[in-house]
Amino acid sequence: MTVVHVLNGPNLNLLGKREPVIYGSATLDDVRAMLEERCAARGVSLVFRQSNHEGDLVTWVQEAGQSGAPIILNAGALTHTSIALYDAIKGANASVIEVHLSNVHARESFRHHSYISPVARGVIAGFGPTSYLLALEAVLENI
Amino acid sequence: MTVVHVLNGPNLNLLGKREPVIYGSATLDDVRAMLEERCAARGVSLVFRQSNHEGDLVTWVQEAGQSGAPIILNAGALTHTSIALYDAIKGANASVIEVHLSNVHARESFRHHSYISPVARGVIAGFGPTSYLLALEAVLENI
Amino acid sequence: MTVVHVLNGPNLNLLGKREPVIYGSATLDDVRAMLEERCAARGVSLVFRQSNHEGDLVTWVQEAGQSGAPIILNAGALTHTSIALYDAIKGANASVIEVHLSNVHARESFRHHSYISPVARGVIAGFGPTSYLLALEAVLENI
Amino acid sequence: MTVVHVLNGPNLNLLGKREPVIYGSATLDDVRAMLEERCAARGVSLVFRQSNHEGDLVTWVQEAGQSGAPIILNAGALTHTSIALYDAIKGANASVIEVHLSNVHARESFRHHSYISPVARGVIAGFGPTSYLLALEAVLENI
Amino acid sequence: MTVVHVLNGPNLNLLGKREPVIYGSATLDDVRAMLEERCAARGVSLVFRQSNHEGDLVTWVQEAGQSGAPIILNAGALTHTSIALYDAIKGANASVIEVHLSNVHARESFRHHSYISPVARGVIAGFGPTSYLLALEAVLENI
Amino acid sequence: MTVVHVLNGPNLNLLGKREPVIYGSATLDDVRAMLEERCAARGVSLVFRQSNHEGDLVTWVQEAGQSGAPIILNAGALTHTSIALYDAIKGANASVIEVHLSNVHARESFRHHSYISPVARGVIAGFGPTSYLLALEAVLENI
Amino acid sequence: MTVVHVLNGPNLNLLGKREPVIYGSATLDDVRAMLEERCAARGVSLVFRQSNHEGDLVTWVQEAGQSGAPIILNAGALTHTSIALYDAIKGANASVIEVHLSNVHARESFRHHSYISPVARGVIAGFGPTSYLLALEAVLENI
Amino acid sequence: MTVVHVLNGPNLNLLGKREPVIYGSATLDDVRAMLEERCAARGVSLVFRQSNHEGDLVTWVQEAGQSGAPIILNAGALTHTSIALYDAIKGANASVIEVHLSNVHARESFRHHSYISPVARGVIAGFGPTSYLLALEAVLENI
Amino acid sequence: MTVVHVLNGPNLNLLGKREPVIYGSATLDDVRAMLEERCAARGVSLVFRQSNHEGDLVTWVQEAGQSGAPIILNAGALTHTSIALYDAIKGANASVIEVHLSNVHARESFRHHSYISPVARGVIAGFGPTSYLLALEAVLENI
Amino acid sequence: MTVVHVLNGPNLNLLGKREPVIYGSATLDDVRAMLEERCAARGVSLVFRQSNHEGDLVTWVQEAGQSGAPIILNAGALTHTSIALYDAIKGANASVIEVHLSNVHARESFRHHSYISPVARGVIAGFGPTSYLLALEAVLENI
Amino acid sequence: MTVVHVLNGPNLNLLGKREPVIYGSATLDDVRAMLEERCAARGVSLVFRQSNHEGDLVTWVQEAGQSGAPIILNAGALTHTSIALYDAIKGANASVIEVHLSNVHARESFRHHSYISPVARGVIAGFGPTSYLLALEAVLENI
Amino acid sequence: MTVVHVLNGPNLNLLGKREPVIYGSATLDDVRAMLEERCAARGVSLVFRQSNHEGDLVTWVQEAGQSGAPIILNAGALTHTSIALYDAIKGANASVIEVHLSNVHARESFRHHSYISPVARGVIAGFGPTSYLLALEAVLENI
Repeated sequence: MTVVHVLNGPNLNLLGKREPVIYGSATLDDVRAMLEERCAARGVSLVFRQSNHEGDLVTWVQEAGQSGAPIILNAGALTHTSIALYDAIKGANASVIEVHLSNVHARESFRHHSYISPVARGVIAGFGPTSYLLALEAVLENI
Repeated sequence: MTVVHVLNGPNLNLLGKREPVIYGSATLDDVRAMLEERCAARGVSLVFRQSNHEGDLVTWVQEAGQSGAPIILNAGALTHTSIALYDAIKGANASVIEVHLSNVHARESFRHHSYISPVARGVIAGFGPTSYLLALEAVLENI
Repeated sequence: MTVVHVLNGPNLNLLGKREPVIYGSATLDDVRAMLEERCAARGVSLVFRQSNHEGDLVTWVQEAGQSGAPIILNAGALTHTSIALYDAIKGANASVIEVHLSNVHARESFRHHSYISPVARGVIAGFGPTSYLLALEAVLENI
Repeated sequence: MTVVHVLNGPNLNLLGKREPVIYGSATLDDVRAMLEERCAARGVSLVFRQSNHEGDLVTWVQEAGQSGAPIILNAGALTHTSIALYDAIKGANASVIEVHLSNVHARESFRHHSYISPVARGVIAGFGPTSYLLALEAVLENI
Repeated sequence: MTVVHVLNGPNLNLLGKREPVIYGSATLDDVRAMLEERCAARGVSLVFRQSNHEGDLVTWVQEAGQSGAPIILNAGALTHTSIALYDAIKGANASVIEVHLSNVHARESFRHHSYISPVARGVIAGFGPTSYLLALEAVLENI
Repeated sequence: MTVVHVLNGPNLNLLGKREPVIYGSATLDDVRAMLEERCAARGVSLVFRQSNHEGDLVTWVQEAGQSGAPIILNAGALTHTSIALYDAIKGANASVIEVHLSNVHARESFRHHSYISPVARGVIAGFGPTSYLLALEAVLENI
Repeated sequence: MTVVHVLNGPNLNLLGKREPVIYGSATLDDVRAMLEERCAARGVSLVFRQSNHEGDLVTWVQEAGQSGAPIILNAGALTHTSIALYDAIKGANASVIEVHLSNVHARESFRHHSYISPVARGVIAGFGPTSYLLALEAVLENI
Repeated sequence: MTVVHVLNGPNLNLLGKREPVIYGSATLDDVRAMLEERCAARGVSLVFRQSNHEGDLVTWVQEAGQSGAPIILNAGALTHTSIALYDAIKGANASVIEVHLSNVHARESFRHHSYISPVARGVIAGFGPTSYLLALEAVLENI
Repeated sequence: MTVVHVLNGPNLNLLGKREPVIYGSATLDDVRAMLEERCAARGVSLVFRQSNHEGDLVTWVQEAGQSGAPIILNAGALTHTSIALYDAIKGANASVIEVHLSNVHARESFRHHSYISPVARGVIAGFGPTSYLLALEAVLENI
Repeated sequence: MTVVHVLNGPNLNLLGKREPVIYGSATLDDVRAMLEERCAARGVSLVFRQSNHEGDLVTWVQEAGQSGAPIILNAGALTHTSIALYDAIKGANASVIEVHLSNVHARESFRHHSYISPVARGVIAGFGPTSYLLALEAVLENI
Repeated sequence: MTVVHVLNGPNLNLLGKREPVIYGSATLDDVRAMLEERCAARGVSLVFRQSNHEGDLVTWVQEAGQSGAPIILNAGALTHTSIALYDAIKGANASVIEVHLSNVHARESFRHHSYISPVARGVIAGFGPTSYLLALEAVLENI
Repeated sequence: MTVVHVLNGPNLNLLGKREPVIYGSATLDDVRAMLEERCAARGVSLVFRQSNHEGDLVTWVQEAGQSGAPIILNAGALTHTSIALYDAIKGANASVIEVHLSNVHARESFRHHSYISPVARGVIAGFGPTSYLLALEAVLENI
């Protein structure tokens, strides 16, 4: 059975409580539930994780990448600072779709550069939790 | 009946003939047909246009924006150079989803800045013609 | 009879509908009428044009410059991107006053550089439609 | 009776003697006389000052701003270096029109940035002493 | 009872042993004792923590912020690199005072930018352990 | 019969009238005549075009490129601003020689970067109308 | 008897009237009174001055520095532009604490660099008039 | 008995599986074995560690540095982003040799700056696993 | 009788007391005496002034320049920040030799740019009070 | 009899052996022979030189320039680093055509700036040995 | 018999006399002797050269590279300025190990960029004369 | 007998023939004669040299520096590009006065940075051949 990994970086555990004007009111559990439902309907299995530690995300990307499973990655702030994630994706030959809840390009200038994008298949940003769903569609179409 | 505008910028008329390693083999007519089918199935109407002239795109964004219709915009090279499109989107209060066939962030550095992104709802890049379909999903979900 | 050319760039056709907090509620037709009245009173003839195409503005600047007529130029977004307009002004030895409705220097940083200014006689920005009237005064004083 | 403040920065006392190719042959007293005549005709009162000291200009902007009087400010070289003037204008909530005799944008690159512009109503540059008259028109229209 | 969180980032566990010319000879335990004494005298409770892991600091800022407790944050090197801490402070709506033992502005240029400052109430730097005491005074005055 | 396309960008229609110190006194019609004569002598056919519109140049490059005909391109100001021309050349797999009448490297700094050069076979600049003739020699040698 | 100098730069005379959202409603006289009370209680003498002239501040820093008295310096806008103050502090070997009412690091980018910081003992910013009190505490602790 | 610490950063656990064109086919265990053999032959003891967490590396550098043991550090991606490692090395007065498997200077530009180099004894890069052996030679020569 | 103006900027009144390692132990009065003796011997008259106020230096440069007298200018910190002095020298057509006691190019990077140099006859830096004497030689040779 | 100097900089002696994909298989002797034949046919004399020493090229440019002979200069890597060649060309008033075998603008970014171009008559790049022939044509046309 | 070339750039002839704190007290002859001894022991032949002329180093790199002999290159200051050496290494397909006596990354910022590194096999810096020995080890291991 | 070395870099052999508006009509032999006369009168010996080769200047600086003789150095274009000269001065502990005939700071921007200045005693620029005489005065005063 196909497995899809959805990996979330720092502060995404605050989702729903954090700056609702930017991020909306759905919590990360809501997002997980929404994705699980969709995965169940499509017959794929979901691994859904969150960590505030860059090292955890590096490890999870390695694991998923080495297993051949596609990754939907919202690395949060690490998107803009983590060369380690860039290396993990390249090193594990991982297939990654980068997602963001907000339109990062319309925000602070330090969010305009991503270390994930150059090694990602594609980028989806700005649609709130729907960003994850669209990424899932892209993953499923590709399988 | 709801209308969705899909506007394409310079050189997208070369699609399918141009650098297939980057852009794939589907032509722009193929993309139009694919989107028309999906629109028909969802009961929305499609306006699909391409021009090599910035002025045409500015005018079309104004028209769509003032009519209240959502826009899926692949501005091609103008993405990176056209403040006029930025102004058109803001000035006409247009609801725009920026799409790209290729993952622009993994290519030449002059493709890393977009004048569209700061005034777009969101960005979808890197999925080939599927980028348009995902954008259409996002539009339909929003209506 | 002396002729004054007032040339308007991309998105100025949206005037009055576009971001009224920044640009006010007068339309471009209102501006034309206001200038025509003033020109009539002063015995000069007015040519008033707008285009979303850079190529049109280049051609119009060439024509006016070669006829020796003064130009009041609001190039909109092209102010910041068009070396072609810079070349047209220099090449046709045109006498240009650069005008802006808004105070461009108090807005986005990409509006802080102008390719028109180095080849213009002077710059007037920030007074809404009155910017055009002040430019007309400067033109008439010079004739 | 309405009062308009015209404040002049460093080296404007050299006007008429200094680089006539750039600045023309009228002296600062000529400019004052020209403005007084125009003000008298329009029933407003003129305060006309010059100093080579940034501190004097800061104090004068504060005074005018707190009295509610509009300011026509040619800060000379301080335009490009004085954050204190920026703060004075904002802090005293002053209504300022920035003027320059020469077209500063066509000169040395260090004249291309202004600390006055972001807190000014508008900018008029390049018309010699006429720059002041145009600014006065803009002030009077606003009253 | 009011609780104040004092959070310390990487290498602050070396305090007293590390570069005494810059940081003095007091250890982190000495700082904790000093703050506990002052807190006890003022009737507030102290949570005092240190970690070399960015993820721990992100989590602790979230916890303190969500509980409404004020935070005194010496993020050490992470001050200059961690967008995740910036997001944690904003996301948890935390009230943070940024402190540094040394005068960071007088040291290497990479210490001159802080991701904490833009989301902090204020900054205190350069007074050795006294920086913490001054921050505590500011916190207590605010309660 | 072999066809060579000579495409000219904005303001080249001013040739001969525009800044003769920089560009000489030959008009664009003189250049066309000179090239036609040389082409006739060499048994090749000439397509010679000029436009002030970027969109026209993009379209003409596509056409020539797709027909396999070599292009001599003087894009004028668009040389420095048009990513769309860069894309057209790459996308149509066009064989382009970039020419300039003046030595662009000895002029304003914004003329020192070219979007054409990275996708051109070679560059010839500074020889007035002779630049075109040298480019034609290079084309003919290559056929 | 120990003397502490509190020196204030341009526009601080506007305090309480100027942008109360940023600076609060206390006037500079209120700050002086508050500091005099605290100084009296601690048995030290206060010299409290303000000027809009950089030259005055340079002279006052020299005087205080040469007398050996500690300085609390809020140089206002000069913080970001005055190398003369940097030289005065170094040249007179003055012991300076830099204070700011607002959190300068959360404001315009031109406020992020300070010529005072590299030659100050420490920096306190963001606590309104309390910034001065905290600085006074730091001074007194040091005596 | 002398102890040498060899510390490895993020993604070095992928060694041998990750981008063999750049990094070769030896695994991290192979490297450890090779170094253990050499250490045994030379009568020194080896501590060999890897982590994907910056915090672990900071702690390990502190420990080794405080014990006086030399460190061979391949910080991977953290080389380019971790001021915390810079601080750990300086703070613990550690003697560090920076090693890289690949020639980092011939790769992406973000690998050209190292926060380790300014506080390292020396740098060895580009020799694959032999980089470690050369570093070990340098360490042993120094003891 | 020929007059030479020697003008000194901020903090030069500290000379002899300020950072003797950099500036030596001679006071500004010593320098004046040394120059007066040399001027007397050469039959020229000396005007020797110092101010901490930019405005005073601007005025003095204007006066000397308009009288046709040569100027030896040590503008201190204003060298690096004062466009007003640049304008005064150009505007009054003053003949200025720029002098510095220390070798400014070997110190902080913000001392590497001078607004005086581009409008000075020449520059002499690094010889302590002898810098003034060498400048005087250059002036006298020129008369 | 007219003399043309063809001067070649560092590493051009490797031509034909060095990176044939970029530079082709003709050796420098082949180029010399080709140019000699063409010169003989046109009745001009050829001086053809190569050196790996900047000083030699400076001396040769001086000699040719002072004799009034035109120069075809392929300075190789010195193109991008040698201000001394820039000075030699200007100082000897030499008439120089800059040539390159490869299209330097399509290669490493450090090849995009030339110190030769601003003082050359023109530039020809990208046509292999034909670049020299085209330059010779331009020289002969000019004589 | 295998030959190893050790090439030394400008000022390395000062070794032992020059800045011993940075470079140690061994002379270049000492280094040569040390390497000759090691080469003899390993049965390889040594060519050891030094020049202050870039042209000599370019020629020597070409010779060694074309003979297939490995090169240990300490280019001294030319490391940071010589594109000609970069071209020589690439053009002669030379196998180069870049060495430095000092840790160049811990010194002046202009020593942080190397034109040698991108075309070298590897880099060894900071170990004094031992840097050469380690490079020799790497060379021998590779043969 | 004291010896003074005057060392001249590339293109100074053109002096008197090269750009007389900038450099005057005196030849380098005139300068030598003028300095020899002055040296004879002061009882010191003169070594006067010129080369177009950086390597020669490096060697001459080393020789003079190691003999303890003062150096007057006009490195011409190498001033701005030669780290090797910087190293030679530091490495040989040479006492260097940097001279320029023209005011380099008023010319092209690439002449505004000097690698000589940070390691020179002082700088004298802009006085034509008198620059050398003033430097000689400074040297003699120092002996």
